[in-house]
Amino acid sequence: MSSFSYPSRLLEEAVDQFAKLPGIGQKTAFRLVFYLLRQPVGEVEAFSQAIDRLRKEVKYCQRCNSISDTELCSVCSDHTRDTSVVCVVESIKEVISIEATGQYRGLYHVLGGVISPIDGIGPSDLSIDLLERRLSEGGIRELILALSPTPEGDTTAFYIFRKFEKLGINFTTIARGIPIGDEIEYTDTLTLGKSIVHRIPFGYGK
Amino acid sequence: MSSFSYPSRLLEEAVDQFAKLPGIGQKTAFRLVFYLLRQPVGEVEAFSQAIDRLRKEVKYCQRCNSISDTELCSVCSDHTRDTSVVCVVESIKEVISIEATGQYRGLYHVLGGVISPIDGIGPSDLSIDLLERRLSEGGIRELILALSPTPEGDTTAFYIFRKFEKLGINFTTIARGIPIGDEIEYTDTLTLGKSIVHRIPFGYGK
Repeated sequence: MSSFSYPSRLLEEAVDQFAKLPGIGQKTAFRLVFYLLRQPVGEVEAFSQAIDRLRKEVKYCQRCNSISDTELCSVCSDHTRDTSVVCVVESIKEVISIEATGQYRGLYHVLGGVISPIDGIGPSDLSIDLLERRLSEGGIRELILALSPTPEGDTTAFYIFRKFEKLGINFTTIARGIPIGDEIEYTDTLTLGKSIVHRIPFGYGK
Repeated sequence: MSSFSYPSRLLEEAVDQFAKLPGIGQKTAFRLVFYLLRQPVGEVEAFSQAIDRLRKEVKYCQRCNSISDTELCSVCSDHTRDTSVVCVVESIKEVISIEATGQYRGLYHVLGGVISPIDGIGPSDLSIDLLERRLSEGGIRELILALSPTPEGDTTAFYIFRKFEKLGINFTTIARGIPIGDEIEYTDTLTLGKSIVHRIPFGYGK
């Protein structure tokens, strides 16, 4: 179904646009477009408008840089949250994942990426200035550096640590260990090693 | 990532819209939306416009009911095609698949579905009137009924056969048999049986 021309330019354009999305090949793209073709005009309009509005009207929280429909996001404007702890993450993906656990009551700071010289992303491309401003306002006693354990994530975490260590706040990071339900036998040696070095009191958290 | 609220209504709406598409779950929908969020406004606009235009501006060929940007589709307006043979198919999906083979030089007739009482689709919901008009204009000597071998496809093929058999045209259907490369041992009995009953001269088509 790939090496030929579609009977309509409109169809071809829609398929091509879908096929640009990550993980969507030409066949899946055609299947999605064919599905939309059979939907009522109103439904397809709602779909295209949701995408258009998302990109054009989306706002970012002025405090934590998370996606928000208002000046302050729902987390930052929640007065029951612990404002002394800030969890530094790469994107809203991590905010959403951590919020889903229901285990965290502090605030966030969304960097909007990680330092990656290969991709031309330096500290000035991230919301580190905004973080500096937040820290200078006082009241924050702990920064949780919850970045991916990749070279870029580690570099970014270390950069932030070095930049702000003089402020006398606590720096922590999320625990590495064996996922709940996994067997010791099949755990990679790096994770297993870390889980022994950073062992916790028996019965903790149960 | 499913059982909680997104930090933005715009984000939630876009994810919900993607999640309505067949085969796209909540997680994939979020991944696609997150990808679009990081693209330039112009690219996202091109995406939403392609979808919007597709549904609003798409036309159907006045002769064969295939999707087309013009009154006559590219197949119907191709003067090198054999206008005496018409292949009756359910949707443009089959047109695209058959065209991709490069083996067919006749025309098509796109029904726009198959008769399915359960789904409330009767003969009047399909482009059978249009087919009748084409046949009454003369010049067609063969109708290839290329519908799926489902109860609905068979019913539709039989309905068309009975409706037009008095016109004295040839009715054919696509050959069923063992796919090229498949082993006889693993072929289902129905297909294998048909492939023996409808056997062809050795060396044919090579």
